[in-house]
Amino acid sequence: MPPERNRDRPATAPARTSEHAPGTTAGIAAIIGAGEIGAGWAARFLLAGWEVRLFDPDPEARRGVAPLLAAARRTLPMLYETALPPEGRLTFCETISAAVEDPFWIQESLPERLALKRRTLQKIQQHCRADAVLASSSAGFSPSELQGCATRPGQIIAARPCAPVYLLPLVELAATAANPPTLLQRAEETLAGIGMFPLRPGFEDTPPLGDRLARALLREAQSMREEGHASADEIDDAIRCGIGLRWVLEGLSRSCPPSGAAPGTHGRCAPERARGENRDESLVALLRALKGRDAAAGAPIRKHESRLRPAHAGARAPLITVRRIVPIDWTDYNSHMNESRYGQVFSDAADKVMALIGADAAYIARGLSYFTVDIHIRFRAETLAGQMIRVETDVLEGTGKKLRLAHRMLDDDTGALLAEAEQLLIHVSLETRRSCEPPPEIAARAAALAAPPESG
Amino acid sequence: MPPERNRDRPATAPARTSEHAPGTTAGIAAIIGAGEIGAGWAARFLLAGWEVRLFDPDPEARRGVAPLLAAARRTLPMLYETALPPEGRLTFCETISAAVEDPFWIQESLPERLALKRRTLQKIQQHCRADAVLASSSAGFSPSELQGCATRPGQIIAARPCAPVYLLPLVELAATAANPPTLLQRAEETLAGIGMFPLRPGFEDTPPLGDRLARALLREAQSMREEGHASADEIDDAIRCGIGLRWVLEGLSRSCPPSGAAPGTHGRCAPERARGENRDESLVALLRALKGRDAAAGAPIRKHESRLRPAHAGARAPLITVRRIVPIDWTDYNSHMNESRYGQVFSDAADKVMALIGADAAYIARGLSYFTVDIHIRFRAETLAGQMIRVETDVLEGTGKKLRLAHRMLDDDTGALLAEAEQLLIHVSLETRRSCEPPPEIAARAAALAAPPESG
Repeated sequence: MPPERNRDRPATAPARTSEHAPGTTAGIAAIIGAGEIGAGWAARFLLAGWEVRLFDPDPEARRGVAPLLAAARRTLPMLYETALPPEGRLTFCETISAAVEDPFWIQESLPERLALKRRTLQKIQQHCRADAVLASSSAGFSPSELQGCATRPGQIIAARPCAPVYLLPLVELAATAANPPTLLQRAEETLAGIGMFPLRPGFEDTPPLGDRLARALLREAQSMREEGHASADEIDDAIRCGIGLRWVLEGLSRSCPPSGAAPGTHGRCAPERARGENRDESLVALLRALKGRDAAAGAPIRKHESRLRPAHAGARAPLITVRRIVPIDWTDYNSHMNESRYGQVFSDAADKVMALIGADAAYIARGLSYFTVDIHIRFRAETLAGQMIRVETDVLEGTGKKLRLAHRMLDDDTGALLAEAEQLLIHVSLETRRSCEPPPEIAARAAALAAPPESG
Repeated sequence: MPPERNRDRPATAPARTSEHAPGTTAGIAAIIGAGEIGAGWAARFLLAGWEVRLFDPDPEARRGVAPLLAAARRTLPMLYETALPPEGRLTFCETISAAVEDPFWIQESLPERLALKRRTLQKIQQHCRADAVLASSSAGFSPSELQGCATRPGQIIAARPCAPVYLLPLVELAATAANPPTLLQRAEETLAGIGMFPLRPGFEDTPPLGDRLARALLREAQSMREEGHASADEIDDAIRCGIGLRWVLEGLSRSCPPSGAAPGTHGRCAPERARGENRDESLVALLRALKGRDAAAGAPIRKHESRLRPAHAGARAPLITVRRIVPIDWTDYNSHMNESRYGQVFSDAADKVMALIGADAAYIARGLSYFTVDIHIRFRAETLAGQMIRVETDVLEGTGKKLRLAHRMLDDDTGALLAEAEQLLIHVSLETRRSCEPPPEIAARAAALAAPPESG
């Protein structure tokens, strides 16, 4: 397989035509202002395949773009199960006119000073296409204020994102009666086309909803701190491990205060069963994602898990190497366990065997481990979310570098066979990433597990 | 394998001794009040292995317990990669005295009427152990108010959970100077031991932080609706797709208003790089969890994904069946891709082949599909988060019910071989869950893909 076969592909895609079918193909965007918000916009357009022309009056601004773009390149494509289109070309322009001449979308993200913004919008309108969307990231000024001195007020809207712009989907649009509906529709289609979620509240000249809600919460938190009710850390914990998990799933309109009741009332929020099930499964998925990162509400759950002793530990034959519930995020449509998760269960079973022979986390931290080089799985039956499963493992071979395991995955209640696997692991040095002999005490334990059990 | 081998295990564990080592072994808890909050507490204790004695003055209350307990049994164990201890025994008691006599922990969750709560707490204290923790779920009344008429005020604290109690970790504790510090310490250890996150703000007689923050946000949302700025749905969207994602990860103290700046200020929140990377990766994990559920901020991302055309579609040999980035939640320590995800990539590659021969989502919806019955994976090299990979697939056999595939997973940039797999799929009826012949047009396309490519 010649490793050079793709080397001649250019690092960035060639510039596209400026003909633009909103939401389906890429065009050219101009970004005016290269701070955190402007650079975030640039990343969104580039990674959606757009050509981007970037202008900032501050010559230092270019330096901040590269690290932000690197962060976006690393994380945004991870959201998708398919590759994004080839990245667009980024050009730093020396003048506003050079930046805005061709683009279909012009995004202004300069500091929040009205005179500066108005002056810049006038300059942009001297050079840009009359059919371009001219959007301002300004949260502090309304579309009316931004349109105030403009040559063509109808071209100017507010499009306010949420940082980090390259990951959070929300963009709040705001407009006035001067903006033609077709322009707003094109704006929505373009933003959806680069993977964002455009929100257009009915009221035209509205301040950003997210800002207003955040400020209300910050004010309340400030009062709580000043009154000595809670520290900033305690307020953060109350949000992250409690009500914040409801907010991010349901917003506000479906959630009561967390305790569910106010003094003097008997009624609690009536649980609606169908919605409740759906909500609970989404909460499980959220909490498992956070547990995987050891972050926010996931940290105490991970800590609790470390205290749970497996019910069937020990080195009797057959070894019980896994005993667990199938979680909701392991399943596809119809709650059937995805076939790859069978592999995960057997990988976890191998981890347990490794720990039993002394190749545990501390051992790995010292730079030695076992890697799977070959696994053969036979699927016998379907497995559902919520099913309790266990794995019984036989150590077939434990000589030298080799550790060969046979696993049987069973329904823990009925004993029904769900899958079988044979797995070959090789002892490796994590420093050289090559195979090596395990130390004698590990080799001895592996050999003992592979030996037939003594009678009696 | 005899399927009856585990049938003689009792459905619930035998009652444990009331001797209790906080946080490590299970004890006996009494739950007074079987509404949504009380039943949620019962589920928490039962699933942690505690024996639970439940009392509610309303004889109808038992009916609500079973569905809530079923929801908890389905979802709470999904949070963990290991089995929970055997579930404790649940007893419905006819009197308060029968419920509270032995328990170490007594949780009162009656309606929010002070006279009722005080009367009940007095009754409890006539019968309970002097060393029991007597905790009230009351959000509306302070510990001082609850202790007001008590025989032993020092035994009574507030422990306010967040619904659903069986999933959300937060419990806010509140106490007065009458409570001995040792009792509060035991309370914290017990709550952590059943998997919750006890928060004890410094101020003793504080109202719940979560309630106060939620009310502030609800008030602001109410004003926004009344002023015509936004509908309830728009407010929900602004939270779910924007600032709510920051709140649930970071709380408030690290997050600015979403736009990052107020009018008249130049400064934006300085991005801290190390923290930013960590935050971004956690955001990716959160957004992917939501995408998997098609919920909240995950819905627009999933919609966008459906519009992304794979870069290399088509039926040329070799088929390019996968081209994607390795996301952060597919990796273990050191950002190495977990071995089970190799299996997921090959499963996705098989989905692509199925779609190519016409066995797509619509086909599956009609009740026919292919199931993997056997996969053999050879691991050749390590794969890292952020790496672009592709899979090339050969259809080895496509006759009758059988579809046999050979996959090669490659680094998309260098062409380096990362893993190989051979996979056997069998055509099945989703109704009978048994194998069956595919219809002629599917069989013909499978056979055509398996044929050697025509020259030219």
